[in-house]
Amino acid sequence: MNFTIINGANLNMLGTREKNIYGSLTLNEINEKIKKHFPTINFTFLQSNIEGEIVNFLHETNKNAQAVILNPGAYTHTSVAIADAIAAIQIPVVEVHLSNIFAREPFRHNSITGSQCIGCICGFGWYSYILGIEAALNHLTKAND
Amino acid sequence: MNFTIINGANLNMLGTREKNIYGSLTLNEINEKIKKHFPTINFTFLQSNIEGEIVNFLHETNKNAQAVILNPGAYTHTSVAIADAIAAIQIPVVEVHLSNIFAREPFRHNSITGSQCIGCICGFGWYSYILGIEAALNHLTKAND
Amino acid sequence: MNFTIINGANLNMLGTREKNIYGSLTLNEINEKIKKHFPTINFTFLQSNIEGEIVNFLHETNKNAQAVILNPGAYTHTSVAIADAIAAIQIPVVEVHLSNIFAREPFRHNSITGSQCIGCICGFGWYSYILGIEAALNHLTKAND
Amino acid sequence: MNFTIINGANLNMLGTREKNIYGSLTLNEINEKIKKHFPTINFTFLQSNIEGEIVNFLHETNKNAQAVILNPGAYTHTSVAIADAIAAIQIPVVEVHLSNIFAREPFRHNSITGSQCIGCICGFGWYSYILGIEAALNHLTKAND
Amino acid sequence: MNFTIINGANLNMLGTREKNIYGSLTLNEINEKIKKHFPTINFTFLQSNIEGEIVNFLHETNKNAQAVILNPGAYTHTSVAIADAIAAIQIPVVEVHLSNIFAREPFRHNSITGSQCIGCICGFGWYSYILGIEAALNHLTKAND
Amino acid sequence: MNFTIINGANLNMLGTREKNIYGSLTLNEINEKIKKHFPTINFTFLQSNIEGEIVNFLHETNKNAQAVILNPGAYTHTSVAIADAIAAIQIPVVEVHLSNIFAREPFRHNSITGSQCIGCICGFGWYSYILGIEAALNHLTKAND
Amino acid sequence: MNFTIINGANLNMLGTREKNIYGSLTLNEINEKIKKHFPTINFTFLQSNIEGEIVNFLHETNKNAQAVILNPGAYTHTSVAIADAIAAIQIPVVEVHLSNIFAREPFRHNSITGSQCIGCICGFGWYSYILGIEAALNHLTKAND
Amino acid sequence: MNFTIINGANLNMLGTREKNIYGSLTLNEINEKIKKHFPTINFTFLQSNIEGEIVNFLHETNKNAQAVILNPGAYTHTSVAIADAIAAIQIPVVEVHLSNIFAREPFRHNSITGSQCIGCICGFGWYSYILGIEAALNHLTKAND
Amino acid sequence: MNFTIINGANLNMLGTREKNIYGSLTLNEINEKIKKHFPTINFTFLQSNIEGEIVNFLHETNKNAQAVILNPGAYTHTSVAIADAIAAIQIPVVEVHLSNIFAREPFRHNSITGSQCIGCICGFGWYSYILGIEAALNHLTKAND
Amino acid sequence: MNFTIINGANLNMLGTREKNIYGSLTLNEINEKIKKHFPTINFTFLQSNIEGEIVNFLHETNKNAQAVILNPGAYTHTSVAIADAIAAIQIPVVEVHLSNIFAREPFRHNSITGSQCIGCICGFGWYSYILGIEAALNHLTKAND
Amino acid sequence: MNFTIINGANLNMLGTREKNIYGSLTLNEINEKIKKHFPTINFTFLQSNIEGEIVNFLHETNKNAQAVILNPGAYTHTSVAIADAIAAIQIPVVEVHLSNIFAREPFRHNSITGSQCIGCICGFGWYSYILGIEAALNHLTKAND
Amino acid sequence: MNFTIINGANLNMLGTREKNIYGSLTLNEINEKIKKHFPTINFTFLQSNIEGEIVNFLHETNKNAQAVILNPGAYTHTSVAIADAIAAIQIPVVEVHLSNIFAREPFRHNSITGSQCIGCICGFGWYSYILGIEAALNHLTKAND
Repeated sequence: MNFTIINGANLNMLGTREKNIYGSLTLNEINEKIKKHFPTINFTFLQSNIEGEIVNFLHETNKNAQAVILNPGAYTHTSVAIADAIAAIQIPVVEVHLSNIFAREPFRHNSITGSQCIGCICGFGWYSYILGIEAALNHLTKAND
Repeated sequence: MNFTIINGANLNMLGTREKNIYGSLTLNEINEKIKKHFPTINFTFLQSNIEGEIVNFLHETNKNAQAVILNPGAYTHTSVAIADAIAAIQIPVVEVHLSNIFAREPFRHNSITGSQCIGCICGFGWYSYILGIEAALNHLTKAND
Repeated sequence: MNFTIINGANLNMLGTREKNIYGSLTLNEINEKIKKHFPTINFTFLQSNIEGEIVNFLHETNKNAQAVILNPGAYTHTSVAIADAIAAIQIPVVEVHLSNIFAREPFRHNSITGSQCIGCICGFGWYSYILGIEAALNHLTKAND
Repeated sequence: MNFTIINGANLNMLGTREKNIYGSLTLNEINEKIKKHFPTINFTFLQSNIEGEIVNFLHETNKNAQAVILNPGAYTHTSVAIADAIAAIQIPVVEVHLSNIFAREPFRHNSITGSQCIGCICGFGWYSYILGIEAALNHLTKAND
Repeated sequence: MNFTIINGANLNMLGTREKNIYGSLTLNEINEKIKKHFPTINFTFLQSNIEGEIVNFLHETNKNAQAVILNPGAYTHTSVAIADAIAAIQIPVVEVHLSNIFAREPFRHNSITGSQCIGCICGFGWYSYILGIEAALNHLTKAND
Repeated sequence: MNFTIINGANLNMLGTREKNIYGSLTLNEINEKIKKHFPTINFTFLQSNIEGEIVNFLHETNKNAQAVILNPGAYTHTSVAIADAIAAIQIPVVEVHLSNIFAREPFRHNSITGSQCIGCICGFGWYSYILGIEAALNHLTKAND
Repeated sequence: MNFTIINGANLNMLGTREKNIYGSLTLNEINEKIKKHFPTINFTFLQSNIEGEIVNFLHETNKNAQAVILNPGAYTHTSVAIADAIAAIQIPVVEVHLSNIFAREPFRHNSITGSQCIGCICGFGWYSYILGIEAALNHLTKAND
Repeated sequence: MNFTIINGANLNMLGTREKNIYGSLTLNEINEKIKKHFPTINFTFLQSNIEGEIVNFLHETNKNAQAVILNPGAYTHTSVAIADAIAAIQIPVVEVHLSNIFAREPFRHNSITGSQCIGCICGFGWYSYILGIEAALNHLTKAND
Repeated sequence: MNFTIINGANLNMLGTREKNIYGSLTLNEINEKIKKHFPTINFTFLQSNIEGEIVNFLHETNKNAQAVILNPGAYTHTSVAIADAIAAIQIPVVEVHLSNIFAREPFRHNSITGSQCIGCICGFGWYSYILGIEAALNHLTKAND
Repeated sequence: MNFTIINGANLNMLGTREKNIYGSLTLNEINEKIKKHFPTINFTFLQSNIEGEIVNFLHETNKNAQAVILNPGAYTHTSVAIADAIAAIQIPVVEVHLSNIFAREPFRHNSITGSQCIGCICGFGWYSYILGIEAALNHLTKAND
Repeated sequence: MNFTIINGANLNMLGTREKNIYGSLTLNEINEKIKKHFPTINFTFLQSNIEGEIVNFLHETNKNAQAVILNPGAYTHTSVAIADAIAAIQIPVVEVHLSNIFAREPFRHNSITGSQCIGCICGFGWYSYILGIEAALNHLTKAND
Repeated sequence: MNFTIINGANLNMLGTREKNIYGSLTLNEINEKIKKHFPTINFTFLQSNIEGEIVNFLHETNKNAQAVILNPGAYTHTSVAIADAIAAIQIPVVEVHLSNIFAREPFRHNSITGSQCIGCICGFGWYSYILGIEAALNHLTKAND
C-alpha cells in the first residue's frame, strides 16, 4: 500500500519555526515517527513551498498512491488551485494540521483546500498525521459505513 | 480511565436523519463500536438537543472524566455558551463531526466551539469518534511532544 | 388526522406581550380558535421557550402526527438546530408568524428555520395559524400539483 | 367584492418555466382555480414583466378593488419602486409566492416588497394564491383581532 | 429656453401618497408652481413609473431641451440604467428630491443616478424643484466659475 | 421589596472559571455580598445555563418582583429570545457583566439583550451587581428625572 | 436559421454615447456588420431600454429563434428578472458586451444575467457580437464536445 | 434676519486647494457674492478646521440666528458630534457642498451630518450657498407646504 | 481624594437637547447632584466639544486626580485618539452614558473609548454618573477582589 | 504571426478532471484543434500549475509573440501577480475559460486577471480558445473600430 | 532649508505612554536626535492632540517650509480632514509612525492620511523620523528619478 | 556584513513596466545604486516571480545574512505563505515598495507580509531600498532604543 504525505509552505522549517505553535520536532523526525507507526505502508514524503508544485504533486500522486495526507500550510486558507487539484484527482485526500486552526487568527479558521478532501484533522501536533493516516486506511478498507 | 462522549443537537436521530450526509448507523450503534474499539476505557455517553444541557454536561464531566469527545451538532456554529463552557473546565475536549464541515454550507465552515478545544476531526463518519478518542489518549499520555 | 402545533420562545406570553405587534389574544384563545375552525383534526399543542425542547418536539411529533405548524418565535432567525431538526424528520412542517417579519427589524427578515419547511406564512395574526393548517391539509391531500 | 391578482416577472411563463420549482399549471389554470374557489368574489387578473407597470397596476387598483394579491416574481427582491407603490395606496396587499423563498438562493430570502404588505405566504404552489385571498378576506372582515 | 422636468416612480401619486413624507401637493400643483416661478422658461413635464421610460425620456430630451430636472423616485437608489442614460447625453441634469434622503432608511442615503448629474438637491419639498431649476439656469449661464 | 438576580451561561462556574477574567469569587459568595449590601431587599437568586430557562425566569419574575438584575453570560451576544422576553415583561431589567465587554473579543462588544434593558453596567467584577441593584432602586424610586 | 439579437439599456445611443468606452459605431451600423458577416442567418434585431420588455423579447424569441445574442447593458448587473427569463426559456442565450466589464467599476464585474447564459464574451467592441454568434452557431451544431 | 454661514475643514483654503474640484474662488470671494445676493440678510461667517469648534458654532448660533448654512467639509462623512449638535439646536440647518458628493470617492457619498439637516444641496460650486440660503428662506417663510 | 468628571460633545447642551433621550437636567444641575452625593470628594468638572481637548484633559488629569469619570458623547463611537489617551495614562477611567447605547442607532452600540476603560455604565440618566463614581471608588479601595 | 496559448492551474488534467464541468478533451486534443483551425498562425503552447511561472511566460512572450490567449484556471480569481504581469507587457492578452464562470461558485464570478486583458470569453468549452484567437486577430488587424 | 515636523494625537505622551509599543524616548528627546542628525536643516516642531489644529499646521506650513514630516497618531486611521489638508497644500508630506501599523490591530492597518502623502515609513521607532527626513530630502533634491 | 535584497512578482520588469507608477530604472540599475550607496555591505540580490521561491529565499537567507530587504510585489497583499516565512526566520526583514501603496487601489492598502516585518517603507521609488537598508542597519546596531 502506497501513501503520499505532502507538506506545504514553511513546513520544512519545523523544529526551528515558532515552536510554541508547531512543536519542536523537525519534519524529518515527524516522518520517522510516521514510518515507525505504520511499518507496512510504503510512504512517499514530499514537501514544497510552491503552491503550484503541490498541485503537481497531487496530479502525480494520483497515479501511484492509494491515498494522500496533505498539510498545505498557509495555502490552506488561500489556494483555489490546490482545492481544484484535489477535485481533479480520484484518490482520497485527508487534510491535517499541527495546530488547531479554529484557535488561531480568523483568516486561518476556514479551509479552502479542505472543502475537497474527505475530512480534516487539526490541533494534535505531529499526531495529526498519524490520525490522518488511520482515517485514510479506514476509508480505503470501507470499515466506515 | 473515564471518557465522556457528548453528542448535541439532532444526533439522537442518526440512522434515520439525512443518511446521505450522516450515514446509516444509529447513535447506539456508534456507541457500541466505540466501546468495542476501546474496551479498557470507561465511557459515559450523553446526548442532548438543548444547548444549555451540553454546558451542564461539560461542567459535570469536569469532575469525573479525563477527557471529553464532543460533537455539538448545529451548536458548533452558533454557541458561545458551549465555547465558554469548554474554556471554563480543565479537562481536554476533542471536537468531532461525522461530515466534513468545510464541504457543506458556508455557515458550517467555522467552529465557534472548536476554538476552545485541543483539536478537531471531521468528515470520517462514525470513525471520527474513534480518531477523537485516540487523539485524546495521545494527548493525555504526553506521547505528543 | 393528527396535527401538532408547536410554539416557541415567548409565545406563552401572548395577550400581555407587546400587544401592538402580537395582538391581544392569549395562546390558549388562539388554540381554541384553531380547534373550532378544524373540528375534525386532532390537535396536540406544544409550547416551549427552550430551543432544544422544540427540537425534541419535532423529533417526537415525527412518530405520531401527519403535519406540524411551527412558530419558532425568536429562534426563527438564529436556530440551525431547529432547521436541522425539520430536515431530520419526514412529516411536512409549515412555518407561521403572527407579525410580518419583513416589516420588522432587519435581523427578523430571514428565516433560518423556514429554509427546511414546505412554506411560510406571516403577518396575519392568529389567522396565520388557520392558513398554515389549511396549507398543510392541502399539501397532504395532494390537491397541490 | 373586487379583488385584483397581480403577477410579475416571468409568471406568464408558468407551465413551461422551470416546472420543478414552479409546478406545471399555467397562469390561466391557476386563475381558473382561484375563480372556482371564490365564486362570489369579482377578480381582475393582471400580469406584467415590467416593474413600472406593476406600480401602475397598484395605483389603479387602489380605486376599484378592496384588496390585492401580489406575486412580484423576481422584483420581490430588488424593487423599491413597487414597495413604495404599496406604501402609496390605501388598500391591503398580500404577497404570495409559489416557491418557498427561504429554501432558494440567498438573494431570494428577503422580500423588499413584502415589507409594505400586510403579510406574506410562500411555498405552497398555486395554493399560495388561495391562502392569500383567504388572508385578505379575513383582514377585511376584521375577523382578525 | 426649454427645460424638461422628469418625475419617476410613484410621483404621480403625490398628494395622496405618504403625505407626512412627501407633502400634500399633487404633481400637477407642483408643476403649476414651477411654471408660475419661471414664466419665461418653456417646460415639458414627463412622468413615468417605468425605469426604461425614464431612460427614453432622457434620450429624447437630449435633442430638444437645454437642461433636465430629474426626480427618479425609488430608482435613485437602484438604477444603473438611468445613471448610464445621464452619462450618455450631453445636456446637464440636476437631481431633486422632495424628502431629505439622508434622513430616511439607509438604502436611500446613496444616489446612483446622482453620480452622473451636475448636482443634487433634497429635502425642501416642492421647493427642491425651484432650486433645481435655478441651479440649472446658473450652470447654463456660466455664472458659476 | 423583591428583586430577582438572574445569572446565565457558565456563571455557576465562577471561582474556578478563567479567574483572570472573572475573578475568584464563587457565585454563592457574590450572592452573599449582595445580601449583605442590601439587607432590606428580598432577593431571589436564579441561575441557568439554558437560554430558554432564562426566558422562563423572566416571565415568572414578572409576577413577583419589582426589578431584575440580569447577567446573561454568553447569551448576551446571541439571544433574541431573551431580548424578546425582556420586552415582553413589565418590570425593569438592568444588565450587568463582571468583565468589560468592550475590552474583549469583538463578538462580545454588542449586547443584544441589553437593547431591551433600562441600562447596562460592565467591567467592575462582583461590584457590577451592587451597582446594578442601586440603578434599579434609583429607577424605581423615581429619583432619576 | 433564425437568430435574435437583443440589446438593452442605452444601447440605442451607441455612436454618441461615451465613445471612449463604447466606440463610435451606431447600433444600426453594428447590425449591418452582423448581417454582412453572417449572410445566411435570418436576424431579428430588438432593442429596449425597459427591463421588462427584454423579458418579453426573450419569452417571444423562445418560439421563433434558434439562439439569442443578448447585451443587457446596465441590467446585466441588477436584473434578476432577465436572469429568470433566460432560465425560463429553452433556446441558448449568449451574453455579449462591448466593453470589458472586469476593467470597469466594481459593480460591473459580476453578471447576474450571465449566470443563466451558456457563456459570455466582453471587451471586443462590436466584434463581441460576431464572436457571440459564432459561439451560438458552434453550440447549436454540436461541434463543441 | 440673521443667518450664519459655517464652513468646515479646509474650506479656508479655497482658491488654492484642488481647483479642479472646488473652483478658483476664495472663501472671502464666495462670502462677498453671498452678501451681494442677499443684501437684506445679516450674515455671520464662521470657519474652522476643528470639528468641535463647528459644534460650538452651532450651539452659539442657536441663540442669535434664524438659520444656518453649513458646509462641514470632510467632517460631513465622519462626524457624529456635528450631527448630534444639529439635532441639539432648534434652528433649521441646510447642508451645502461645492462638489457633487455622489460623483466622488465612495466614502463621500453618504452625509452623516446631513441626516439631521432639513435638506442638502451639492455640486453647484459657490452657487450651492446661494441655493442653500434660498432654501432656508423658503423654509422660514413657510412657503413650503 | 480628587476625581475629574469629563464630558464630551454636546453635553453642554443638556437641559435643552433632545430631552426625551437625555432628560431635562442641565450639566450644571447634574454636577450639583454629584457634589451633593459625594461631599468628601474634590471634583474637577471639564467639558469640551473638541475631541483633542478631551485628549488633553485626560493627559492633564493623569497628574492630579485619582480617577476619571468620562462621558465622551458622540466621540464614544468614533475616537481612536481618546481611546489611545486613556491607554496612555495610569489612572482608572470609568465610562458613563445618560442613555442606553444598546437601545439606540446601531452605530452607537459599540464603544471604542470604552475598550480602554475599566468599565462602562449606560442608561440611567444623571444617575449613571453617581454609579460611575461609586465604581471608581470601589476600584480604588480594592473592595473589588 | 506568433500567438502564445498559456494555460494555468490544473488544465494539464483536462480529459480526466471533472468532465461534467470541463469536457472530455485533453489539453493536447484542444491544442490540435486550435492548430487545425488556424493553420497560418505559429502557436506556442505553455502550461504551468505555478502562478509565478505564468508570470514568467507572460514576460517572455512579450518579446516573441503578437498576442496571448490566457486561461489562468484557478488563479483567475486570486492572482494580483498575473494581473500585474499582463499590465507590465505590451502585447494584447485575451482571457478564456472553458466553463461559464458566472454560473459557478460565487468566488469564481470575478476575474482579477481579466481586469488587465483586452477582453474575456467564457463558457464555450474548447471553442472559447477558438473565439479568443479570433478576438485577438480582429484586435491586431484593427478591424474593430 | 525649513522642515516642519508635525506630531498628532497622544505623541506628547511619549516616554510614559505604552513604552512596549512606542519606546521610552520623550518627544523632546526625539526632536533633539532629529536636530543632531540634520544640523543644517531648520526645524519647526509642532504637536497637537486636536485634529483640526493639525489641519491648521499643514495650511500654515505650506507657506514657510519645503517639506513636512507628519505622524498623525490615531488620526492616521480616521481623518479625512487631514488627508484633504495634505491634498490642499503644495509641499511634500512624508508620513511616519513609531510602530509598525501592519503588526497592530486591524483598524490601524490602513492609512487614510497616507493616501495623500508622497510615501510612508513605519515601525522603526524614533528612527522612522530620521528616515522620513532623508526621504523628503531625496525627494526635494530630485535624486529620485 | 551580509544583506539580502529580495524582489518579488514582476519586479524583473522594472524599466519597461508601467513607468508612471514604478519609475524608469531597471532592477539592475537599482541594484547598482544600492551597492554604490553601501560599499561596505555585501549584498545578495534575489528576484523571483514565484511566491514559494520567495519563501525559499527567506529560509536560506536566514542562514547567511544579517538582514533582508523585501519587496514582495503583488504578493504583499495576498501571501500568508511569505508572512509565515518571515515569522519562521530569526533575522530582521524590512519591507519596501517603490510606489505608495496607500495611494493606489484599495486592495493594495494592506500588507499581509508587512505584519511580520520590523517595519515598512513605501512611496519613494528606488530610494525606498536605500531607506530600508538604513533602517535595517540602525536596527542591527541597536541605535534604536
